[in-house]
Amino acid sequence: MPNQVDSRPHDAASAAPAALPRGKGLTVTLGHDVPLRLDCGVDLGPFTLAYTTYGRLNADKSNAILVCHALTGDHYVADPHPVTGKPGWWHEVVGPGRIIDTDRYFVVCSNVIGSCMGSTGPKEIDPATGEPWGLRFPVITIGDMVQAQARLLDHLGIDTLFAVIGGSMGGMQVLEWVHAFPNRVFAAVPIATSYRHSAQNIAFNEVGRQAITADPDWCGGDYLKHDRRPERGLAVARMAAHITYLSEQALHRKFGRKLQNRAAITYGFEADFQVESYLRYQGSSFVDRFDANSYLYITRAMDYFDLAEEHGGRLADAFTDVKTRICLISFSSDWLFPTSESRAIVHALNAVAANVSFVEVQSDKGHDAFLLDEPEFHETLAGFLDGAAEHRGLPRRVEG
Amino acid sequence: MPNQVDSRPHDAASAAPAALPRGKGLTVTLGHDVPLRLDCGVDLGPFTLAYTTYGRLNADKSNAILVCHALTGDHYVADPHPVTGKPGWWHEVVGPGRIIDTDRYFVVCSNVIGSCMGSTGPKEIDPATGEPWGLRFPVITIGDMVQAQARLLDHLGIDTLFAVIGGSMGGMQVLEWVHAFPNRVFAAVPIATSYRHSAQNIAFNEVGRQAITADPDWCGGDYLKHDRRPERGLAVARMAAHITYLSEQALHRKFGRKLQNRAAITYGFEADFQVESYLRYQGSSFVDRFDANSYLYITRAMDYFDLAEEHGGRLADAFTDVKTRICLISFSSDWLFPTSESRAIVHALNAVAANVSFVEVQSDKGHDAFLLDEPEFHETLAGFLDGAAEHRGLPRRVEG
Repeated sequence: MPNQVDSRPHDAASAAPAALPRGKGLTVTLGHDVPLRLDCGVDLGPFTLAYTTYGRLNADKSNAILVCHALTGDHYVADPHPVTGKPGWWHEVVGPGRIIDTDRYFVVCSNVIGSCMGSTGPKEIDPATGEPWGLRFPVITIGDMVQAQARLLDHLGIDTLFAVIGGSMGGMQVLEWVHAFPNRVFAAVPIATSYRHSAQNIAFNEVGRQAITADPDWCGGDYLKHDRRPERGLAVARMAAHITYLSEQALHRKFGRKLQNRAAITYGFEADFQVESYLRYQGSSFVDRFDANSYLYITRAMDYFDLAEEHGGRLADAFTDVKTRICLISFSSDWLFPTSESRAIVHALNAVAANVSFVEVQSDKGHDAFLLDEPEFHETLAGFLDGAAEHRGLPRRVEG
Repeated sequence: MPNQVDSRPHDAASAAPAALPRGKGLTVTLGHDVPLRLDCGVDLGPFTLAYTTYGRLNADKSNAILVCHALTGDHYVADPHPVTGKPGWWHEVVGPGRIIDTDRYFVVCSNVIGSCMGSTGPKEIDPATGEPWGLRFPVITIGDMVQAQARLLDHLGIDTLFAVIGGSMGGMQVLEWVHAFPNRVFAAVPIATSYRHSAQNIAFNEVGRQAITADPDWCGGDYLKHDRRPERGLAVARMAAHITYLSEQALHRKFGRKLQNRAAITYGFEADFQVESYLRYQGSSFVDRFDANSYLYITRAMDYFDLAEEHGGRLADAFTDVKTRICLISFSSDWLFPTSESRAIVHALNAVAANVSFVEVQSDKGHDAFLLDEPEFHETLAGFLDGAAEHRGLPRRVEG
């Protein structure tokens, strides 16, 4: 029966402290007693999650939104990034009076396990050895990321999410939430995503991984021990990936064949074209804020994601217990996660009579459109959230 | 006036030797007296071209076809490649009784200057220093490649080509031939190509170049002098490029998410998926047959190609003197050189009332379709060539 979400308190919720820390730059170490059993079979624990919260949890804890970040994202959703100083990656969407209104909702975002912004991942210290994990870190999955997030929500005393929202790999986590915790999610918005990585997606990720591991400074994954960093390989990986985030039209509109501060081509290998200079900048700035091994682990988690395969190839069977109201959003010029992927999810959800709506936003901005100022997307997201909030009985602002 | 090709002997043709070497693995050194004035302003000479011929030139020298190869191609069109032992890259199309029938046509293909299969390029010895050119080799353009080919045809005593045919970068050369030598080309077939490299094309090439130059074994381009080779960087460049040669559908059909000789994912970084294994093979086998600096130079030549820009942005002005009959062919799933690029050329040719036809072949094989068994493409090419041969008055076989 759609939209009936279990309202019983979750086991761990009763153990949640009365006054929890709120705000940015928080960390919590979980799994002391019961480690996280990863899909690969390894027990991970204790493990740390870095997270940020915005707004206030209401009295009946019904206004929590979990935001899930993408491959190279983090929990600095609406705050300046501590390394780059740039505005949070979704500051256009999350904040007071914004679509994900922090005057109305309690917003949580945690850095996924395997990443490098404070959550347990390959660059952190393995307690067993006292050295950075490197490649001894267990391979994690989207399912593992979500299980870790569920532990955080337990810790925060949040049994049921009002909504879980995310784009790209964040959208994979949203789908996994709906699949793994059908009773804990009232509404879900998977954006520009897929239920499984395609051969082309895997291929692009593999190019990135090969670029990193080909860099002699990668040192078999132990670069931190040797005080080195595979910056050249990681930059190449980022450059290749970055092309896939933009549409051909967006690149044409933004750069075309425009030259970089020069009147004519130089007949050399400097960055004659603006698009070359832009890509080089994307690569070189990325290495300042991201860990190469995390890039390997998180791309691997994306490659492994396949909700259908877990159910004998029948995607609908992944959603038999779904009670969540779901709004899928895709972008017409996204060729990394094309609309056809979202349609396949819609078909599967229709097959189990789920409450699902779907919008393909007309945009020439490509995959990255979900991070950009894209009015039709914002209107769609706002409209869906407002409708869901009404069904959930949430007032416009958090009550006193 | 279309289809009227100048039949006066070209200046150099009268100097051609009576009996020329024919066959495979030929080389000729040209530009002893008059060096090749490159677009960058450098005089290159003498320079060597490696080439292959198939079939026999007829008495009035009216049956010559120049085949132009793509980025990593060479003059081993229908013969086994000397390094890989694999059949020639266009053996499906060129040969006795085939579409480009070597019983009927005299087929010439030369390795482009800047490449690495015997023609003058960065891995050859700079006579001025006695060392490999490396990055001291001048940056060449598609125009330079074509001017060098024209010198070869002069040497062979061929004034007018019956046809010039090529795909991808080969198609750029075809367009350049039509533009630069409107009197020397009776018919032309630019396949899966463009009149200028797009921002996305440049971006992918730049990723490849960055992968190569990031490899410490590249040694600033002087790897041959140091007895090293940037194989890892070149392999990554090839892997990234290879994805762009295939359509998403082709990758899905060929590999999907199929695993490589294993029952389940391994939770590691080995090639679990067939598409990973395939890409790794594409990368590692490529480095055996291609020179990294040549990859830099030839991608640069492609990036610089822009027939419109040379004419104030008006492509039609590049073709004002065109007399050639032209057949453009694109492939519906080619996202590297999409059909829209061919259409833009057709519009420009229509604007100057050129004799042009255009076919978009329905194919899910992507850009590489021109190298593959694609019946509709082959029928189109055969039909156009047969019609042109009839107009040219060529018999079915070369007369005795």
